[in-house]
Amino acid sequence: MTPPFAESPRVALPAASFTAIDQVWDAYREELQAVESHIVRSVDSRVIVINRVAGHLLQSGGKRIRPLLLMLAARLCRQGGVPEYEIILASAVEFIHTAALLHDDVLDEAALRRGHETARLLWGNKASILVGDYLYTRAFEQVLRLGHSEIESLLADACRKMVEGEMLQLSLHDNVAITETDFLTIIDHKTASLMSAACALGAMISGAAPREIEGLTRFGRWLGLAFQLADDALDYAARPDKLGKAIGKDLHEGKITLPLYHLLSACGPEERAAVERIIRDGGRDGVGPAGDGEPGLSTIITLMAQYGSVAYALDRSRHFVEQAVQELRLFPSSPHRDALELIAEYVVSRDH
Amino acid sequence: MTPPFAESPRVALPAASFTAIDQVWDAYREELQAVESHIVRSVDSRVIVINRVAGHLLQSGGKRIRPLLLMLAARLCRQGGVPEYEIILASAVEFIHTAALLHDDVLDEAALRRGHETARLLWGNKASILVGDYLYTRAFEQVLRLGHSEIESLLADACRKMVEGEMLQLSLHDNVAITETDFLTIIDHKTASLMSAACALGAMISGAAPREIEGLTRFGRWLGLAFQLADDALDYAARPDKLGKAIGKDLHEGKITLPLYHLLSACGPEERAAVERIIRDGGRDGVGPAGDGEPGLSTIITLMAQYGSVAYALDRSRHFVEQAVQELRLFPSSPHRDALELIAEYVVSRDH
Repeated sequence: MTPPFAESPRVALPAASFTAIDQVWDAYREELQAVESHIVRSVDSRVIVINRVAGHLLQSGGKRIRPLLLMLAARLCRQGGVPEYEIILASAVEFIHTAALLHDDVLDEAALRRGHETARLLWGNKASILVGDYLYTRAFEQVLRLGHSEIESLLADACRKMVEGEMLQLSLHDNVAITETDFLTIIDHKTASLMSAACALGAMISGAAPREIEGLTRFGRWLGLAFQLADDALDYAARPDKLGKAIGKDLHEGKITLPLYHLLSACGPEERAAVERIIRDGGRDGVGPAGDGEPGLSTIITLMAQYGSVAYALDRSRHFVEQAVQELRLFPSSPHRDALELIAEYVVSRDH
Repeated sequence: MTPPFAESPRVALPAASFTAIDQVWDAYREELQAVESHIVRSVDSRVIVINRVAGHLLQSGGKRIRPLLLMLAARLCRQGGVPEYEIILASAVEFIHTAALLHDDVLDEAALRRGHETARLLWGNKASILVGDYLYTRAFEQVLRLGHSEIESLLADACRKMVEGEMLQLSLHDNVAITETDFLTIIDHKTASLMSAACALGAMISGAAPREIEGLTRFGRWLGLAFQLADDALDYAARPDKLGKAIGKDLHEGKITLPLYHLLSACGPEERAAVERIIRDGGRDGVGPAGDGEPGLSTIITLMAQYGSVAYALDRSRHFVEQAVQELRLFPSSPHRDALELIAEYVVSRDH
């Protein structure tokens, strides 16, 4: 039986399977370049400042994980689908992701993103909101040209879920009574839905069988859950220069993520009272200004080390990575499958 | 020849033609009720607070002008189209309009909308941004179900133009070198594009001939231009209790609209210097806090009365209303045509 990747003509595959994540990016450099060109070409508003604001974030060194997932899913399944859809959908998915980031940075009052000043800091919140709206509509304008209603509905559904996840998070802001189910729902919606959609779209445009589409949909979902859990853990554990943004952001914003939830459940009643006070104070502990190195955050990080809260979140993340990799067993071994596995491993090991 | 409205079974038409705008609303009460029900049913997020925030603005007494335009355009052209599309599209258009208002109120830091506190004041900017995003995606989710690619593209195009118009306005903020072409482009994009789309959609779903679709597209566009010009004039002239929001908002936000543009062009050099200073100070004139009745705004209003700037903007608005009404001559006389004419007249005469 011919392996499914044999029909994909443009991939320069290394002789052996990939062993490092950088090799994945190298091997698909040409495809990713095609997406880059399409992204640049599609930000073509007559209102020049829109292109400038959108370009700032779109070209700030994002890893293009979602476009890559889409292209790898397509190559894993290719049964004679429509490969030219790939580039349009890969860039649409990146547009949607970027639109959400622009709005997120306004919601979180973020100053740094990928090591650069955020668009809201450079052009203001208003421009960030509007250019986010612009990128959402540009994504849909492109997708609509394909005239494929299932694809359109899948993407609209993912967008709605992303917003619902963010809104659920906002409504549970500062709420120490949050349950594990609550924030699994939050991250499932706000992060996993688009990753899952990217994988599903790749499969769909390759004429994959329903069980393959379903398998890749689940793969993307587990991957998204793992990705967000790792992100939430890094917010308490990463070196800020590696993370490209300040640590302790979630605490400062009153977002109760898994490490903090774990700490609240694991620590004693007196410590819990202290932690709750710090959460209410946005990480300040009532004694100093918010920011890096304030006593509230230090207290939390010390307690988390003591109770293994970051390790717990990373364990959960690894568990989802394993579930993701398990879904790939549906497909025969191939470099594309290896690449997807490496991306999954990368998600939980990045930036440490 | 049977008049085109004869195939529309649900319209309770008055015996004579409409003479007052309220009669239009009365005559189409049943249709508008069907849209209301659909709007309420479609805000059905599992994240309850989304429904609450969206419902607050959606049910705050908006005139439903865009849904009504869509339904009237459909009835004007009905040649055996798909009337059940009407309600879905009419509510989608209202969702898009409401999404834009939610984001607008954040952009403008508005406290009042339709005489009520804005969603951003009650639930915060973050919730307003996210619920705006939610309503955009819900609008598209509904429209996609119809599987009509021309309709989808038309709406996506209108959404993009709305955002481009807002962004152009933002980029020309405080800029006294703005030209009349600039802000005609701004209002054409930010306001006329959706009104035009509403009319075009009504025609399209009724199997109208291309020249009818084009005529109604133009009608909606002129109407939108007239609507925004009247709105901009009212911001310097209306009684706040009638307008449902504070006057002088545009000046306060550094938006140079037609009345202010006219004043800048018409007044003498010394007055112009004073006006420019007031614009830079956001209406404050450097001597008092911003708000109703501050000296900067009073100075501007006095000068506008002297130079006839508000009257000039209203004249331009009336001119666009006439152009809109002219487009309706394409269609034989009918109560639906009369209703569209009355809406056009209402646009320029409302709230004085």
